[in-house]
Amino acid sequence: MSVEKRNPIPVSEAIKRVVNQAIFMDVKTLALEDSLNHILAEDIVATHEIPRFHKSPYDGFALRSIDTEGASGDNRITFQVIDHIGAGSVSNKKVGEFEAVRIMTGAEIPKGADAIVMLEQTIEGNQEFSIRKSFNVNENVSLKGEETQVGDVVLEKGQQINPGAIAVLATYGYTQVTVYEKPSVAIIATGSELLDVSDALEPGKIRNSNGPMITALAKKHELKVNTYKIQQDDLNSSIEVVTQALANHDIVVTTGGVSVGDFDYLPQIYEAINAEVLFNKIAMRPGSVTTVAVANGKYLFGLSGNPSACFTGFELYVKPAIQHMMGAKAIYPQIVQATLMEDFKKPNPFTRFIRATVTFNGKEMTVRPSGFNKSGAVVAIAHSNAMIMLPSGTRGYQKGHTVNVILTESQAYELDSTL
Amino acid sequence: MSVEKRNPIPVSEAIKRVVNQAIFMDVKTLALEDSLNHILAEDIVATHEIPRFHKSPYDGFALRSIDTEGASGDNRITFQVIDHIGAGSVSNKKVGEFEAVRIMTGAEIPKGADAIVMLEQTIEGNQEFSIRKSFNVNENVSLKGEETQVGDVVLEKGQQINPGAIAVLATYGYTQVTVYEKPSVAIIATGSELLDVSDALEPGKIRNSNGPMITALAKKHELKVNTYKIQQDDLNSSIEVVTQALANHDIVVTTGGVSVGDFDYLPQIYEAINAEVLFNKIAMRPGSVTTVAVANGKYLFGLSGNPSACFTGFELYVKPAIQHMMGAKAIYPQIVQATLMEDFKKPNPFTRFIRATVTFNGKEMTVRPSGFNKSGAVVAIAHSNAMIMLPSGTRGYQKGHTVNVILTESQAYELDSTL
Repeated sequence: MSVEKRNPIPVSEAIKRVVNQAIFMDVKTLALEDSLNHILAEDIVATHEIPRFHKSPYDGFALRSIDTEGASGDNRITFQVIDHIGAGSVSNKKVGEFEAVRIMTGAEIPKGADAIVMLEQTIEGNQEFSIRKSFNVNENVSLKGEETQVGDVVLEKGQQINPGAIAVLATYGYTQVTVYEKPSVAIIATGSELLDVSDALEPGKIRNSNGPMITALAKKHELKVNTYKIQQDDLNSSIEVVTQALANHDIVVTTGGVSVGDFDYLPQIYEAINAEVLFNKIAMRPGSVTTVAVANGKYLFGLSGNPSACFTGFELYVKPAIQHMMGAKAIYPQIVQATLMEDFKKPNPFTRFIRATVTFNGKEMTVRPSGFNKSGAVVAIAHSNAMIMLPSGTRGYQKGHTVNVILTESQAYELDSTL
Repeated sequence: MSVEKRNPIPVSEAIKRVVNQAIFMDVKTLALEDSLNHILAEDIVATHEIPRFHKSPYDGFALRSIDTEGASGDNRITFQVIDHIGAGSVSNKKVGEFEAVRIMTGAEIPKGADAIVMLEQTIEGNQEFSIRKSFNVNENVSLKGEETQVGDVVLEKGQQINPGAIAVLATYGYTQVTVYEKPSVAIIATGSELLDVSDALEPGKIRNSNGPMITALAKKHELKVNTYKIQQDDLNSSIEVVTQALANHDIVVTTGGVSVGDFDYLPQIYEAINAEVLFNKIAMRPGSVTTVAVANGKYLFGLSGNPSACFTGFELYVKPAIQHMMGAKAIYPQIVQATLMEDFKKPNPFTRFIRATVTFNGKEMTVRPSGFNKSGAVVAIAHSNAMIMLPSGTRGYQKGHTVNVILTESQAYELDSTL
């Protein structure tokens, strides 16, 4: 058997081919409280103005600004308190000359008044208070409609429903919301060398770590995940299980079997099920043989059996596909720059991805490869929150060089000195 | 009623007081597949070496390096293929002079052999192949134990179980893992001005958005959340409901009622239940009146009723407390630097937090305030993935200035040009 020739494409081209597929999930309507982290399938418009009325942003007194003219430390002006309202209440009195209504944060400005004096700006007496400065019309007043007008698009189709979006939906009275369904994922680890986590070790074999890892990555997206049993290196049964998985899921992820070895059956499986292969070689390390195909309007991801390549393939191709098919606007890897804290001497004939830890040292973002950095190192993945990305055609990098980094996680180990 | 005097403390001091409490969750044992995102309550050690045997990182041929001496383009050396093994299989043949075993990625190096020739480095014939370069001892061989030795700590107590950690646990055969329990949270929105999301609007009232928002923030941490019904501004019933919530949950979060207004009952509630107030004034805007107390080994968070202040209070104090009580090592806000893309002219007598959107433009991280930036703006929260942090004592900032930014979310809208 000769080595199959494959033409590598750039990482960006591979990502584009993945997200340019017209593969989209159906929409459904969810109760607001169940909608967190889903992608909006409709624009959300303001159903009322915010604020709905001129309101006070502070605890204080509502009065007529005209009555404050000339107030100073030497000429304090005194106001009579004619009413006292909490948030949610409305005064039925009208504020007249040198009168005021005591008012709480968020409460509606009473009739007649056009400015708010903060409590801290007054000296209070019994049923009265005095001030030492003048106030302008609308000073300390949140004006009706200044944040949003009725009909304003406040959340756009394609936005992920984050906690802030939940607050917006609640504010405008949306008890239900239309979102995209989340894809269901079949995960099939392949390889006759693989044992289950509960199996005792056997000569020449290793436990399956890619299956559980990809399952966890999919669960982080709150997808419905079906983890199949380990698939032996057998063409016919592999075709059967992939066919079955494809019938029942929106995404089929296999790990292993993508290379050009004698037991790498993925190309034949894709051929057997009439899948259109988008690419089977990418100019990247690890994971150059990562393969993506589509069939029946569904995605098939052939990730490498090498754990680092498998992880990299998920971050670069599966994640964007999930976001894309759920109608999200934010679908691409999040990239930042950081200062490399260790030499990395290898040349990079292909774009290289290295599991890494990003830290902010109070002045700049720094990054360092996570522990042992052979591509088989499962442990390094667990200790990384990022991937360093070294472009193809570059030679070694030195400590102090600026490199691009893909962020994959968050939350810091140290209290930053800038806080 | 006079204005209560409170002494503001710095944000860093407030965070320290929160996480210095000896409040910790119990530990429990979970099945590996249920452990994602929990915090490890034990160190995890390697139960076997990785690799467990000298193995091949490539598809190729295993041979004796000594036999390759002198190979060149003009002097190709030919080897006889005596066996053919896939990953997971072990050859029972011993490689002799000018013999080789065809071997797959991940397979064990057969006896006698000490180097791997990649398929691409050969010209294959029938049962034989030739090479044009010499190989060193252990060239292209992953050595037994080079990644981990038995007993190495591969995951530390306090680490969050991310997908990479799941892979590590699977690799070493951990079917169960000891983790910290997640705290249960009671969420009580207070304020007589508040309506439920399904209520029709009434004069002077607004719908409760903080309750759903904080519920969503807690759900992002996969906590058990109990959202109480809206609590009116009534001291006795407020004491009752907080007492009840405290009896049944590890964390009680209230929104509203923290200020010094006449209907701000939180100080009296904390007094009534004998809570120790850690602080009730922070040198920050918005949310200076954010209050944190402890009682019966549980946390009480009094967040502001102002949505932005409420969000900020959760990010700065509740999140670190959750991480701390679950035994996590990474508990602090994640801070980076970015270039400000708009002028921000207000002076900052207190440290100021502004909801913002961080973008990487291919060269640097940039940040811009999210839309309308009065602190009541719910909509801005939904459109932010970060908070700009401007230190107290600073005057206005201009476009182009470098500012510190707390990251709260991820995934990009554009395919980065560096990919």
